[in-house]
Amino acid sequence: MKKFVKFAGFLFLFLSLIILGAAVAEKKESFSPYVDEEGNIILPTDFRSNWVHLGSWVVPYQRDPGYGFHDVYTQPESLKAYRKSGRFPDGTVLVKEIHTVQWDDMPSGHVIFADEKSSWFVMVKESKGHFKDNPNWGDGWGWALFKASDPSKNVSLDYKKDCLSCHELAKATDWVYIQGYPTLR
Amino acid sequence: MKKFVKFAGFLFLFLSLIILGAAVAEKKESFSPYVDEEGNIILPTDFRSNWVHLGSWVVPYQRDPGYGFHDVYTQPESLKAYRKSGRFPDGTVLVKEIHTVQWDDMPSGHVIFADEKSSWFVMVKESKGHFKDNPNWGDGWGWALFKASDPSKNVSLDYKKDCLSCHELAKATDWVYIQGYPTLR
Repeated sequence: MKKFVKFAGFLFLFLSLIILGAAVAEKKESFSPYVDEEGNIILPTDFRSNWVHLGSWVVPYQRDPGYGFHDVYTQPESLKAYRKSGRFPDGTVLVKEIHTVQWDDMPSGHVIFADEKSSWFVMVKESKGHFKDNPNWGDGWGWALFKASDPSKNVSLDYKKDCLSCHELAKATDWVYIQGYPTLR
Repeated sequence: MKKFVKFAGFLFLFLSLIILGAAVAEKKESFSPYVDEEGNIILPTDFRSNWVHLGSWVVPYQRDPGYGFHDVYTQPESLKAYRKSGRFPDGTVLVKEIHTVQWDDMPSGHVIFADEKSSWFVMVKESKGHFKDNPNWGDGWGWALFKASDPSKNVSLDYKKDCLSCHELAKATDWVYIQGYPTLR
């Protein structure tokens, strides 16, 4: 019995250390794994395999500013939260992956495909003004644009100049074109 | 100590019953949760929230047989297996959800959106000929088409007549248009 008590004692000590360690780690953790302490946004990787697809659309003509095949993804837990509350919780990341467009004649008809990766638009939900001095944060979101030529660099300098013009029409739905997201329905 | 031994005894008995129960349940389980014993294919639900998105494309003109916005999903474990082996393992389900198409002029340009759900094409990978007497199984797959008017009914009567003509060009890639699946790349 003594041995068992001793064993149980060590077990609880070990578990306590794990729990305390996790608590300390959580304190040190930043707002999001995709945002550094200055509010610089990092492009998530492999979201196509691990996140949920909200919806796709295509701007087929190269003359248009939004040219490309657009696929939008978010974290599974953000989708769940949106379905409960109708809002994306803080920490939600929307990644819109853009491919160039390919037209082809197939047995099913004239088809528009996604071809080569060209860029990624990223929005990170943040409603408390953590990064209000950073010009890529505001209106409840962090905003970023990465080009395939250098996916490590956010080329947006100021979201008000570089991002808002295309999102103006979606202001009533928290700046996001939810009509393009059938998964939310 | 006696009490502890008794408690441990009951605990192990309980665990053994759970393990045995699971083993029996597994034996009774059919080939796939989406296929009944006669090979009838059942349309999965909520695949948009729980599965991975392989890719999307659009056949924008109503005159074409494949008209609609196509979004394709599969199970996360099938994607993992494909990335390792270059093949979809038995039990893989490909669900292609089709929406009608909406064109709109947006700040980003002339956009093609997914509008209303219209149908689902489903393929189930099966290489051992389990259902060789069922006319919707063959060439390594089970084949199905569900319409939004009755998603419980596979309207395909014979995959050779109802499905293969559109897939002929993809024979070399196991009848699947993998060029439309950027997630596999």
